[in-house]
Amino acid sequence: MKGIWLENQHLELRNDIPLPAIAADEALVRVLRAGICNTDLELLRGYYPYQGVLGHEFVGIVEQGPDNLINQRVVGEINATCGHCRYCLTGQATHCENRTVLGIVNRNGAFAEYLALPVKNLHPVPDSVSTDAATFTEPIAAALEIQEQVTITPQTKVLVVGDGKLGQLVAQTLALTGCDLLAIGRHAEKLANLTAQNIATGFAEAVTDRAFDIAVECTGNPDGFAIARRALRPRGILVLKSTYANQLSLDISSIVVDEITLIGSRCGPFSKALKLLVENKIKVDNLIQAKYPLNEGLAAFKHAQQRGVLKVLLEMD
Amino acid sequence: MKGIWLENQHLELRNDIPLPAIAADEALVRVLRAGICNTDLELLRGYYPYQGVLGHEFVGIVEQGPDNLINQRVVGEINATCGHCRYCLTGQATHCENRTVLGIVNRNGAFAEYLALPVKNLHPVPDSVSTDAATFTEPIAAALEIQEQVTITPQTKVLVVGDGKLGQLVAQTLALTGCDLLAIGRHAEKLANLTAQNIATGFAEAVTDRAFDIAVECTGNPDGFAIARRALRPRGILVLKSTYANQLSLDISSIVVDEITLIGSRCGPFSKALKLLVENKIKVDNLIQAKYPLNEGLAAFKHAQQRGVLKVLLEMD
Repeated sequence: MKGIWLENQHLELRNDIPLPAIAADEALVRVLRAGICNTDLELLRGYYPYQGVLGHEFVGIVEQGPDNLINQRVVGEINATCGHCRYCLTGQATHCENRTVLGIVNRNGAFAEYLALPVKNLHPVPDSVSTDAATFTEPIAAALEIQEQVTITPQTKVLVVGDGKLGQLVAQTLALTGCDLLAIGRHAEKLANLTAQNIATGFAEAVTDRAFDIAVECTGNPDGFAIARRALRPRGILVLKSTYANQLSLDISSIVVDEITLIGSRCGPFSKALKLLVENKIKVDNLIQAKYPLNEGLAAFKHAQQRGVLKVLLEMD
Repeated sequence: MKGIWLENQHLELRNDIPLPAIAADEALVRVLRAGICNTDLELLRGYYPYQGVLGHEFVGIVEQGPDNLINQRVVGEINATCGHCRYCLTGQATHCENRTVLGIVNRNGAFAEYLALPVKNLHPVPDSVSTDAATFTEPIAAALEIQEQVTITPQTKVLVVGDGKLGQLVAQTLALTGCDLLAIGRHAEKLANLTAQNIATGFAEAVTDRAFDIAVECTGNPDGFAIARRALRPRGILVLKSTYANQLSLDISSIVVDEITLIGSRCGPFSKALKLLVENKIKVDNLIQAKYPLNEGLAAFKHAQQRGVLKVLLEMD
């Protein structure tokens, strides 16, 4: 089959990738649509030594699997887990010690004609949700993970740093809590997406130092981190939503004196993400920058790598 | 009066320091004993631009103040707070926006014949607690702050990194929770103090990677941080108990992937610390490395700065 293959920080479009082998508890999914995520770009820059088909945000059609899923449109949780380690047994399966991760760790991903995932990972996509929109289920779930980790009420003053594709989803999901929210970024036209949804926005200059209870870092760069850090009040919480290609230099003493909490945040709840899409509570149309057929996948990556570009989708249907 | 004065990273013993001026809500305390803390050594290295009398761990006798405290032995909380800012009004007075801090921020400290503190900061020392032991109230309270911030049960697997004076108090206070505890350090003779109290100890080699729920970093150096980090299981908590003179280089991506929490930890509850001393549940005798009269305060600092030295006390009585 056709797919976009990563090897030694080099991408190529291959036509000779074998169809995924399907284990007993797995389904074969024909991919309809897939999204390029910053993690894909970081993998390309060598942040983790993955080799194989890239891609973990997708919508597909089940071609082999249990009868009730055949010909269903599905999205899929990306961690394929063992079911018996201490994390699987304590409701923390995204941290399974024996996991493979779609397009990230030891499992060919979604930028191909087909992928395989455990049946338990799949969620049918309700008819009312378009295939384009459903492609955002995975990053919306990741945005919702924040609310699984920290308590946010209408009284909580929250800053989102970064107006990229993840920052926009984070801001939209947080806005649903009714919290006192400010989203900042560097691009007026992207912030306008959020302003249109009644979310307060601004540039870095709009941030009052030591004023926020929670700051969510969605830029993956040291400048963004610095803004998030200085925005926090003592005992504030800095949520780290982005991976960083390089080490970050951190002033630990100020973290100790201000008793700041830093918390890393990764994969989140798919069911809740799909529910928000069904209820039309998250707007994703404006986040789609471009669509490319799989054949032009390398051009799609070039586009996605440009500064300030939002979501680039691959179309297989 | 006599005191040890810090200015431009230079210490000197002065004889001409004015007696502290006492505000209406303050007491004048004649210092009996004071302890040299790593924060004092960091201040000397320039971690924060403080100028004045150093010292914040002390026991003294109230000479001016309310009748019920006159001639009482007391210890004192080090943050002098305004009482009306949002932190004071929400039970987080140690983060008061207008605070001065004894021997650290805009308030002359305890390495002198006298100090001044608000009356509300003072805690009488019960007769059963020796003056030497009571000098440890402040660092024991700081160790107890960990338990105010994170939940520790007998099922919690906890690593303490560092066998210095703070690490030893942290290990002893954590042991009282009944948690599954390992304390590691570089000095067999110091670890023996803890072993004698039935605390499991070892060198860095004794640490199993990705095995601990909580790791407490008490070394203030990058090596200690690295051990604490690698010891943590996914979703583990790294408590930062030490200030660092320099920036720390941090792998943010692994923090995100493993959803690690880092939390800074500073001042803690004095009443609970004193109670533990009354109940003889914390052993401090073995932590006293040397005592010097205030006149020999500079020699005391030289001693305290030597590698591997535990608590050095100054005696004013």
